[in-house]
Amino acid sequence: MNSSTHSPIDDRVQRSKERVLRTTSELLTESGLGGVSIEEVSRRSGVAKTTIYRHWATRADLVIDACSQISTKQDVPDTGSFEGDITVFLTSMATLLRTARWSSIVPSIIDAAERDPDMAQIHSIIQRGHAAPLQEIITRAARNGEIPISTDPSTMIAALLGPLFYRRWFSREPLDDTFVKAVVQNVISQL
Amino acid sequence: MNSSTHSPIDDRVQRSKERVLRTTSELLTESGLGGVSIEEVSRRSGVAKTTIYRHWATRADLVIDACSQISTKQDVPDTGSFEGDITVFLTSMATLLRTARWSSIVPSIIDAAERDPDMAQIHSIIQRGHAAPLQEIITRAARNGEIPISTDPSTMIAALLGPLFYRRWFSREPLDDTFVKAVVQNVISQL
Repeated sequence: MNSSTHSPIDDRVQRSKERVLRTTSELLTESGLGGVSIEEVSRRSGVAKTTIYRHWATRADLVIDACSQISTKQDVPDTGSFEGDITVFLTSMATLLRTARWSSIVPSIIDAAERDPDMAQIHSIIQRGHAAPLQEIITRAARNGEIPISTDPSTMIAALLGPLFYRRWFSREPLDDTFVKAVVQNVISQL
Repeated sequence: MNSSTHSPIDDRVQRSKERVLRTTSELLTESGLGGVSIEEVSRRSGVAKTTIYRHWATRADLVIDACSQISTKQDVPDTGSFEGDITVFLTSMATLLRTARWSSIVPSIIDAAERDPDMAQIHSIIQRGHAAPLQEIITRAARNGEIPISTDPSTMIAALLGPLFYRRWFSREPLDDTFVKAVVQNVISQL
């Protein structure tokens, strides 16, 4: 009896939590970290402030929870060649940088990470998520003898992701296929 | 008579303005854009709110003025070789990224630039300041026949600055001489 009466309540709690996280993520996109207050999240989501505080003790906890859900998990391509793999990965990354919601939230997180260790932790998780597939592609290519075993993955990842991030957040120039191809060729030509 | 009595007042006004801008810049470093309010700038600088509002109509105007003063003007090196020039420039940029105050404020500006055209304008000025010396180095080397005339400066600048910015603000890995040398070699080897 107890378990069957619990279930709808649990569902409702779950739905409220999801609505709060979704609203927080929307506010982050629209106005950055500065735009997120428990007041505003409550107003927009229709979830009472007391309910929000029951799940997240502070605004920081809520923001961290919302941020940790925004990064996109990318597959590790396996085209049969190193050049093919990094081209597929960077092309997909360029698309995400142009279109994914996290792309406009990341600067907020990086800014907060400069001063807040919790946000630095969140940023580090997102960052590792972006670099991990390349790490795997590079390790595999070195194992297969396609690239020198002496290749430093971290330097190569900076040479591949750095120019894309630079265009998205710094120079705001187009992230098109021509550019992705040039970045790939730049790295391939030094092997 | 009038001009001699004016001068000390002008000096005082000038000193107040400088104190307000310096305080704003300190607050930006400590807490990002979110930490800057006219209230707090007034409290810290000891300059009355009414005086601040006389010079800057809005908080945004004050922030934009403070931000526009933070970027560092870098010289264009002339070592006699393209490789030497980009090595000197990137080494100095790596030092600034590790130590200059603007380095911890830039994420705040980029974040605001995502949504605010005025801040996007400020960021674009800072960004052009960072890229301009490289643009000049590349143009000169192409003119001298040291690098192919077909070299696309914008792609090459992304390959040079992108990895440095990536390490400073994204992966937070060391920006040491070994890394700078690897970035230079990566670009040199494709020529």
